[in-house]
Amino acid sequence: MITLVLGGARSGKSAFAEKIIEDLGGGTYLATSRVWDAEMAERVQTHQERRNHLWTTIEEPVRIADLIVNSDKPMLVDCLTLWLSNLMEEECDITLETNNLCAALAAAKQDVVLVSNEVGLGIVPDNALARRFRDHAGRVNQTVAQAADRVLFIAAGLPLTLKE
Amino acid sequence: MITLVLGGARSGKSAFAEKIIEDLGGGTYLATSRVWDAEMAERVQTHQERRNHLWTTIEEPVRIADLIVNSDKPMLVDCLTLWLSNLMEEECDITLETNNLCAALAAAKQDVVLVSNEVGLGIVPDNALARRFRDHAGRVNQTVAQAADRVLFIAAGLPLTLKE
Amino acid sequence: MITLVLGGARSGKSAFAEKIIEDLGGGTYLATSRVWDAEMAERVQTHQERRNHLWTTIEEPVRIADLIVNSDKPMLVDCLTLWLSNLMEEECDITLETNNLCAALAAAKQDVVLVSNEVGLGIVPDNALARRFRDHAGRVNQTVAQAADRVLFIAAGLPLTLKE
Repeated sequence: MITLVLGGARSGKSAFAEKIIEDLGGGTYLATSRVWDAEMAERVQTHQERRNHLWTTIEEPVRIADLIVNSDKPMLVDCLTLWLSNLMEEECDITLETNNLCAALAAAKQDVVLVSNEVGLGIVPDNALARRFRDHAGRVNQTVAQAADRVLFIAAGLPLTLKE
Repeated sequence: MITLVLGGARSGKSAFAEKIIEDLGGGTYLATSRVWDAEMAERVQTHQERRNHLWTTIEEPVRIADLIVNSDKPMLVDCLTLWLSNLMEEECDITLETNNLCAALAAAKQDVVLVSNEVGLGIVPDNALARRFRDHAGRVNQTVAQAADRVLFIAAGLPLTLKE
Repeated sequence: MITLVLGGARSGKSAFAEKIIEDLGGGTYLATSRVWDAEMAERVQTHQERRNHLWTTIEEPVRIADLIVNSDKPMLVDCLTLWLSNLMEEECDITLETNNLCAALAAAKQDVVLVSNEVGLGIVPDNALARRFRDHAGRVNQTVAQAADRVLFIAAGLPLTLKE
């Protein structure tokens, strides 16, 4: 089963997603973050401390499709928003990469839970790059939601079901 | 039936709203956008390409109430957020115009679907105009939601039902 | 019963929360806002005009836990987001204060309704203080949501149930 867990910053979406995999006995944590600065490092550490012996961690900022296909354990992808940000930084073809991701999800032999931020519910950002990012993020979320069996929206740590 | 379709940027709200009208056999697409720059032109074109022979397009940035009352076909209003932005630019009385819109919806002889952005779920914007816009947008959404028979919130292309 | 009412700016969350208390016959309105400028003063006035003889108003920007415990009437706390902002301004320990709040909610003898903003659904803010605020706000919402019996998410004046 493919699950997309959407939510805002500090909505509890990662903890919720981790719980899904832990209830399956644990699995692989695929971290897409690149550690840029102290603030980000702190976030990564907070996330790591929450995980435990139930988890194996892989760090891969861009090439996640093959890892998803080849995983023989339940996998958590955290998160698509940082993955997208990495794709944009490397000037990848976002549509192509998103389609590759969805093909990988269709071929996955194990449960996959993907975490993603909803970033389009504020005022239009001033700068063009942020607007472009927001557009891509929305499209990635829509495309992956179509490919997913279940889509949850998390607010204050609690889920609303968009699809199941 | 009057339907309000709320959602963020690139949430799939327009496509979802178009589908409602297409399932009714098509209708009138009332576009409220003014084409300001290349970026907006690209957005408009993307939207147009998705529409087809099922649609007649009308462009009207401000005076939408009469068009709604007089339509003899199902109508899609896309979107209230750009309409509000046009009202503010022309220094119209937002409350009055919103009440006129709701009176038009009450008098409409056909199904009307209205698309609107939810813009109030981010950090308080730095500039006063953006805050004022955000306040107006929230009030417009509340008022139209009261006038609507059905209100949907779209995320990642999928609906949550706020009212039906 | 403890109810948390979440929503965006101008989502109708305060009016919805007031209605819950008014349906109980009225109660105490605990206002956490500090009136900084003309814009905020206008907001406060709008809120006050909506309230009536069913309400007693208390203003307390920071020390709300004792007031909650000692209240012998239903209480509306409006809102946790301004309370958090006051805590940050006074350099309080946010985790400690949030835990004190939850202890007060557990000890409350009367219904309490708390209003809070969801602020994490836009693009990552440019400035570090806004990001820090956003992180704290998300954590406060998660923690209070755990302590609450019921959590509602309001958009366009209409509720989605996150917990009940």
